[in-house]
Amino acid sequence: MSKLFVMGMGPGDLGLVAPNATKALAACSDWVAYGYYLELLGELSEGKTFHDLPLGEEIGRARLALDLAAQGKTTALISSGDIGIYAMATLVFELLDQQLQGKENHPEWLDVEVEVIPGISAMQAGASRVGAMLGHDFCTVSLSDLLTPWETIDKRIHAAGAGDFVISFYNPVSRKRDWQLNHARDVLLQYRPATTPVMIGRQLTRPEESITFTTLAELDAKDVDMFTMVSVGNSESRHIVNGEKHWIYTPRGYSKKL
Amino acid sequence: MSKLFVMGMGPGDLGLVAPNATKALAACSDWVAYGYYLELLGELSEGKTFHDLPLGEEIGRARLALDLAAQGKTTALISSGDIGIYAMATLVFELLDQQLQGKENHPEWLDVEVEVIPGISAMQAGASRVGAMLGHDFCTVSLSDLLTPWETIDKRIHAAGAGDFVISFYNPVSRKRDWQLNHARDVLLQYRPATTPVMIGRQLTRPEESITFTTLAELDAKDVDMFTMVSVGNSESRHIVNGEKHWIYTPRGYSKKL
Repeated sequence: MSKLFVMGMGPGDLGLVAPNATKALAACSDWVAYGYYLELLGELSEGKTFHDLPLGEEIGRARLALDLAAQGKTTALISSGDIGIYAMATLVFELLDQQLQGKENHPEWLDVEVEVIPGISAMQAGASRVGAMLGHDFCTVSLSDLLTPWETIDKRIHAAGAGDFVISFYNPVSRKRDWQLNHARDVLLQYRPATTPVMIGRQLTRPEESITFTTLAELDAKDVDMFTMVSVGNSESRHIVNGEKHWIYTPRGYSKKL
Repeated sequence: MSKLFVMGMGPGDLGLVAPNATKALAACSDWVAYGYYLELLGELSEGKTFHDLPLGEEIGRARLALDLAAQGKTTALISSGDIGIYAMATLVFELLDQQLQGKENHPEWLDVEVEVIPGISAMQAGASRVGAMLGHDFCTVSLSDLLTPWETIDKRIHAAGAGDFVISFYNPVSRKRDWQLNHARDVLLQYRPATTPVMIGRQLTRPEESITFTTLAELDAKDVDMFTMVSVGNSESRHIVNGEKHWIYTPRGYSKKL
């Protein structure tokens, strides 16, 4: 039986990894991942064969995972967060689709049993660390234009503004890319108040975690790096302070009944 | 020390409950939840004091959880899925906010240490069971107009259509409410193809799970109940078939590079 587990390991804290994922990892002989995530897994990784392809070689990683599983090796394709959200799962199915259309020459891939195990995504880690930021309708937008035309991204920022969704920005900046986040801020300022609460969460749930509470008007790409999740509240989100403790929550409308 | 854990137990499969949540549950003397979720937890619940308030008494549940914790009982406020997503977490902070504003008379609540533990939400369970449906920008919309004016919901459906987001509908129908989902379908048909893949996932990850693959044009509220998650693909989502196995994925755009 050829089996490929496609799994997300959550934001970093091993206490947020689903037991199903841990169990599947133990059953696999081969792990395919970007090295940084392998490090996070620490002691779980003893006795496993690592296939550590660098960032940017996503297609190579998905192909390798399918190849290894097709060879009969029980294989794990691993990402942080939820592998179904801006991560590798979709690429596995894109490759299978290409094969089904006869555009690849790997019929053996179609015999691989694929199981996807979800994980806690960064937006959820961030929302929980600051309270309940995703308490009402929300959306995610990736600001990376490597694979998506900027026009599409810009359209989605406007739609998110018009719909008054809470917004979590994935890939807010990169080493070569820093203007998109400030552009997104300026678009959203057309739709919601300058005082709208914003969370900047860096290295969420990891020992080096740092969280900054700011406002939409004060949001600046210079305070954000590749390890950061930026979530912007909707027009009703509230930043509250209880002594030294800060929280952001987005109400569902219970106040009418309280 | 007064402590309240606010935690999501995932979609149903205990193998998707974060170890941090399981550990916190064990540390609590008192559990507050809607009874159905308590049942899911099965053997974990031995020796705990249950506070089982019925569906609809969300405010009572949040108040009780704060009261118990303020009395010094280490307390768990429990929901299925992610408690930060359309669930009880936001209500806890709404009550704390009311107290901070002097609109409640429970200063003892402000001494409670609150910790929120995220969980796997139904949209993630559904996306993973059918492949990688949330592979690109997505949003969530609750179709319940109990607390949110219908005009706001309708505006968000239009915005989700205009932005070409993958959409997960929470609370798609209820016993008294069945027309909203078909209305949402008709709105989305103005923005994306009739053939857009749709997943109808009932009792996801539970023993009685059933999943139906359909299209936007064929989506009908009569096939949906309160235990169902409905996710609608974006204009590029693909439904593929490999032998007896069906998948839906939403590409990120790698095909240009494959």
